[in-house]
Amino acid sequence: MTNARIDGKRLWQSLMDMAEIGATAKGGVCRIALSEEDRQARDLFRSWCEAAGYKLRVDVFGNMFARRPGRDPGLPAVLVGSHLDSQPTGGKFDGAYGVLAGLEVLRSLDDMGLDTLRPVEVVNWTNEEGAIFKPMIGSEVFTGAMPLNSAYAMPDPQGRTLEEDLRAIGYLGATDLRPDALHCYFEAHIEQGPVLEREGETIGVVTAGAGIRWYTLTLTGVESHAGPTPMDVRRDALVGAAHVVLAVREIGLGHGEQGRGTVGCLAPYPASPNVIPGRVEMTVDFRHASEEALSAMDEALRRVVAEIAARHGLAADLNQTVHSPLIPFHPDVVGLIRDAAKHLGYSHRDIVSGAGHDACNIAKAIPTAMMFIPCENGISHNEAENISPEDSAAGGNVLLQAVLRAANDPEPLKMPA
Amino acid sequence: MTNARIDGKRLWQSLMDMAEIGATAKGGVCRIALSEEDRQARDLFRSWCEAAGYKLRVDVFGNMFARRPGRDPGLPAVLVGSHLDSQPTGGKFDGAYGVLAGLEVLRSLDDMGLDTLRPVEVVNWTNEEGAIFKPMIGSEVFTGAMPLNSAYAMPDPQGRTLEEDLRAIGYLGATDLRPDALHCYFEAHIEQGPVLEREGETIGVVTAGAGIRWYTLTLTGVESHAGPTPMDVRRDALVGAAHVVLAVREIGLGHGEQGRGTVGCLAPYPASPNVIPGRVEMTVDFRHASEEALSAMDEALRRVVAEIAARHGLAADLNQTVHSPLIPFHPDVVGLIRDAAKHLGYSHRDIVSGAGHDACNIAKAIPTAMMFIPCENGISHNEAENISPEDSAAGGNVLLQAVLRAANDPEPLKMPA
Repeated sequence: MTNARIDGKRLWQSLMDMAEIGATAKGGVCRIALSEEDRQARDLFRSWCEAAGYKLRVDVFGNMFARRPGRDPGLPAVLVGSHLDSQPTGGKFDGAYGVLAGLEVLRSLDDMGLDTLRPVEVVNWTNEEGAIFKPMIGSEVFTGAMPLNSAYAMPDPQGRTLEEDLRAIGYLGATDLRPDALHCYFEAHIEQGPVLEREGETIGVVTAGAGIRWYTLTLTGVESHAGPTPMDVRRDALVGAAHVVLAVREIGLGHGEQGRGTVGCLAPYPASPNVIPGRVEMTVDFRHASEEALSAMDEALRRVVAEIAARHGLAADLNQTVHSPLIPFHPDVVGLIRDAAKHLGYSHRDIVSGAGHDACNIAKAIPTAMMFIPCENGISHNEAENISPEDSAAGGNVLLQAVLRAANDPEPLKMPA
Repeated sequence: MTNARIDGKRLWQSLMDMAEIGATAKGGVCRIALSEEDRQARDLFRSWCEAAGYKLRVDVFGNMFARRPGRDPGLPAVLVGSHLDSQPTGGKFDGAYGVLAGLEVLRSLDDMGLDTLRPVEVVNWTNEEGAIFKPMIGSEVFTGAMPLNSAYAMPDPQGRTLEEDLRAIGYLGATDLRPDALHCYFEAHIEQGPVLEREGETIGVVTAGAGIRWYTLTLTGVESHAGPTPMDVRRDALVGAAHVVLAVREIGLGHGEQGRGTVGCLAPYPASPNVIPGRVEMTVDFRHASEEALSAMDEALRRVVAEIAARHGLAADLNQTVHSPLIPFHPDVVGLIRDAAKHLGYSHRDIVSGAGHDACNIAKAIPTAMMFIPCENGISHNEAENISPEDSAAGGNVLLQAVLRAANDPEPLKMPA
């Protein structure tokens, strides 16, 4: 461990400068992937990297890599970063914080005249938010989990392909995907939840990305007239759906701190004030840090849906649409984050990421860890999203310490079997 | 009482002939008000009336009146009827039964050579269903409750006015609204609910149209990410809405055989599978045969919404949008229906109409009663709608007996104060 520190003011100023691109009236940003605003944000990042002398490469999917050389150019690099695109009514910090904290680490190393054994690179992944295309494609294509040509062919709302959009903003690069081996990947991010703030912790040491299971459920009863149909003969699909909404909440509550159960979509048909709904279509989202718990939640849902359907005379069609297993981050890389927070005297706790991040894709190919800083009231994907300059600087310092340890370690990290 | 009977086979044949107009593949009809199919149905009704020698008048709102003279042409007529328009995927009997049972009464009087003191008229009201315009306008304009010019000005989906649509199908008539005083109005209709069938009764003696109260409710919580947001800090508007759906059902169940509580529309926002709904908009429909009960249901809803909102950290905006008081039918006219069923030996019970009918509008101006016959499985507003030829004939016989009594009574009926 060293007493190296980042320049918290410069990091904050970079965040504020970046937030001017796509700035909205309510204090947020609109930088939809592959839009003109995305281009401007990429250009600004590029100009900062080039001004500092970091060689910038853009790969064939538009992912941007800025490299600070190491003493041994043959060793795999340490990668840090996140994304610069945003939701249509997004905040200043979601994604941008991870990219600019990474850039600040490189700048601080320059200021302090510190070199590293391994190269250190900062990445801006293409299209994390999925405001137009599906989310986190840049990192998925990078690891080979999604074929490049499938991603290229995705249509935007104007009917152009993603490849055409990349070319139009000048970021269809020439560098191959994964041109070099990488040692490990760090992603710093705002929490997007209220846990750190509520518990007064500065640093979240992210041990895993939660397992996610999605379901669609269609309940079918009998559509009938709200006036002549007595209560006791009704087969009201919306009454059944209401029981399911409450059961999903109970299932989430019944599985400890990490349990999440959410109904986000629910539509009754025919949706007329005086017609008893004959059909409801709804979604269920379960998350947990344990696959065992997720299996128990799955079983509970199937049981409760069958009970509710039988009790209210409904047919139930329950389908699992997403089964995304728990993604454990690499224990050694997670340990570097935890050690750095400890060394710097920041209060910290282990935490599981409920949301998906590029790090969840990258973790399948490269030793990876994430770090959270608190965000105000847990609000994100919202123009009101906010963080404090102190937490921003603290996160940058943790990232610096962790990167230094990783970049000066000559030993390779092993992926778990 | 007499031993007069209608010709049940002829009535059934008329129903089947009428059902060919706008017939759908699934055995229903599509005769949207003021459509080409509505014109054809009106033309067929007109041709039958003219063939039988009943003078047909069309009023300035397209309501059609076919008159069989009485011995005293100066006495106010007895009116019977309903409507020939249908829902887009409607059944063969909703509305058409009341018009054609009325026509069958006149035809049977001819067959039997029976004359009546008062004239008897059959009416086909314009636009009962409200598939395009709001429901039951023809009877509302007829009584003066809705100004003619407001109704004329209503736009259809093509941007033409209702007046233009009436002219286009050739049914913008010349007869004034309410040209003559009327003695009373009878409307025969399918029940559109399961009560008569379930209890094995042939005739429903309709004593009133239920009071109706409609509400809109907006619940506002905090929209947040389904992953990072722990269950215990959520302010999930859909969880609150689910409690309201179940409470509305309990309120309906808690107010006896006549109580109805229905949530027909419910929409969460932003309606994404991984976003906790920050807002829900929904409707509530309460019906009852007692204004006292409706007031208690209203109070219960306000209390339960406030409790649920407080418990889940939601803001609640509850607004009453419809307050349609109980419409008692005229006891003497109701008595004629009940006496006729008794005289003919048909099993019967008093019943309240949960649905709205033209009779509910007419009852405010003229002594009125309704009669229900059973419909299969209580299904209506549906191509599967069905009745039995036996019940059809029974209803026609009750209508004939009641009309004969009313049309031979020289005394005027008094509207209650």
